Amino acid sequence: MSGRVLVVGLGPGPDHWRTPEVADALDAATDLVGYGPYVDRCPERPGQVRHGSDNRVELDRARLALDLARAGRTVAVVSGGDPGVFAMAAAIMEALDADPSARDLDVSVLPGISAMQAAAARLGAPLGHDFCAISLSDNLKPWPLVVRRLTAAAEGDFVIALYNPASKARPTRIFEAFDLLRTLKAGDTPVAFARAVGRPDERILLATLRDADPAVVDMATCVIVGSSESRFIARPGGARPWLYTPRSAPFSPSSGEAG
Amino acid sequence: MSGRVLVVGLGPGPDHWRTPEVADALDAATDLVGYGPYVDRCPERPGQVRHGSDNRVELDRARLALDLARAGRTVAVVSGGDPGVFAMAAAIMEALDADPSARDLDVSVLPGISAMQAAAARLGAPLGHDFCAISLSDNLKPWPLVVRRLTAAAEGDFVIALYNPASKARPTRIFEAFDLLRTLKAGDTPVAFARAVGRPDERILLATLRDADPAVVDMATCVIVGSSESRFIARPGGARPWLYTPRSAPFSPSSGEAG
Repeated sequence: MSGRVLVVGLGPGPDHWRTPEVADALDAATDLVGYGPYVDRCPERPGQVRHGSDNRVELDRARLALDLARAGRTVAVVSGGDPGVFAMAAAIMEALDADPSARDLDVSVLPGISAMQAAAARLGAPLGHDFCAISLSDNLKPWPLVVRRLTAAAEGDFVIALYNPASKARPTRIFEAFDLLRTLKAGDTPVAFARAVGRPDERILLATLRDADPAVVDMATCVIVGSSESRFIARPGGARPWLYTPRSAPFSPSSGEAG
Repeated sequence: MSGRVLVVGLGPGPDHWRTPEVADALDAATDLVGYGPYVDRCPERPGQVRHGSDNRVELDRARLALDLARAGRTVAVVSGGDPGVFAMAAAIMEALDADPSARDLDVSVLPGISAMQAAAARLGAPLGHDFCAISLSDNLKPWPLVVRRLTAAAEGDFVIALYNPASKARPTRIFEAFDLLRTLKAGDTPVAFARAVGRPDERILLATLRDADPAVVDMATCVIVGSSESRFIARPGGARPWLYTPRSAPFSPSSGEAG
């Protein structure tokens, strides 16, 4: 009896962003394992066992998935966006790293559309040039490492996508991040707050770094902070401006040691 | 007569990574515009006009798409991965930026799976923590800006995904990039060369930064260079090791001014 673990990404919301590969995996699974709200987004299938769990227990979830596979089950571990980006694929790998006896299990990761990509599509093309993705959560890493990475991202003039910008337990980190970025980047740098893109409660706000109010963010928000080249394109008829980062960039010498 | 532009991402290769939204757009399009090999990957549809073009003419392609939409056509502009990541969405925005008269056209960007995500899924979870994506092409940006960004990426201890690592016109840039990264990062940093993931000629090579031979890369290769936390997991039975970056990180003070 040989089980499997399929680590799948549902995409940010609507079914039309879910790949056929993931849809097939959800059909084939005998068990679904994941954060409750993500499991709830999977279609019901007779006989399938749904193991919804609380937030912040990723490693418990990963161990459960491996145990179920060891018992011969076909387990889909579900993440909301791409399982490989701040999601369950790393937790599964941590569980495999800690348990050599599980490493002969059949484990596959199936990619999905991540939140920053859905946000970028809606906004125009803010990630059209070099960019970085940083989680602002300091549940598992020290805040000074976040500071180091924000500083480096500004030094490299990357477009910055911020994941997990705030939660009830950490409401102030996004303010600290913006306070720091305002000392490092121009005030007219474009900023976008893209919340729940593709879902009924989608909400997009555009601002400049100088004027942006981080109070609007929650855990469903992906924040994009532009590079020095990112810009808005005005549109007629009251349409929201496009935001994009050109493919070309002139060289401007860095103020730091880099370059 | 009102046309549309749908800027779509086919994903890295197999149809099972193409979202239903993109598949529907390809069905609805009267015209396909894109780099020839990407247009060739779209299903044939009677009456649809296929405008395949050469590489490196992205802006010409974008202008053609806008002109066709202005004439009432439904145009799918096709990119290989995600149109928002080093692909056609930025070129379309550049064309709109340069042509205010086109800004009332109905333009949508439909996201897709990008090459680094397919590579990450195959490898394990190398992008499981903070990462950046850098194009090594200096067709449109000066090489010193690439150097600045590689330096900042190392300073921030990001995982680094390198796009467009080499071409016939620029065979040496990947060697220069590795020479630089070897001065900035530990020799045992994990590296992966992931070529044509999901396609019949997929080829994945793992190495350390010290031993990696960039001669294997071509334009179909996505290169991933780990952070200080990235690691391999050995597997039994001759299986390729997993590569992942843990969700947690201890704080190690930076040698530079950041942090």
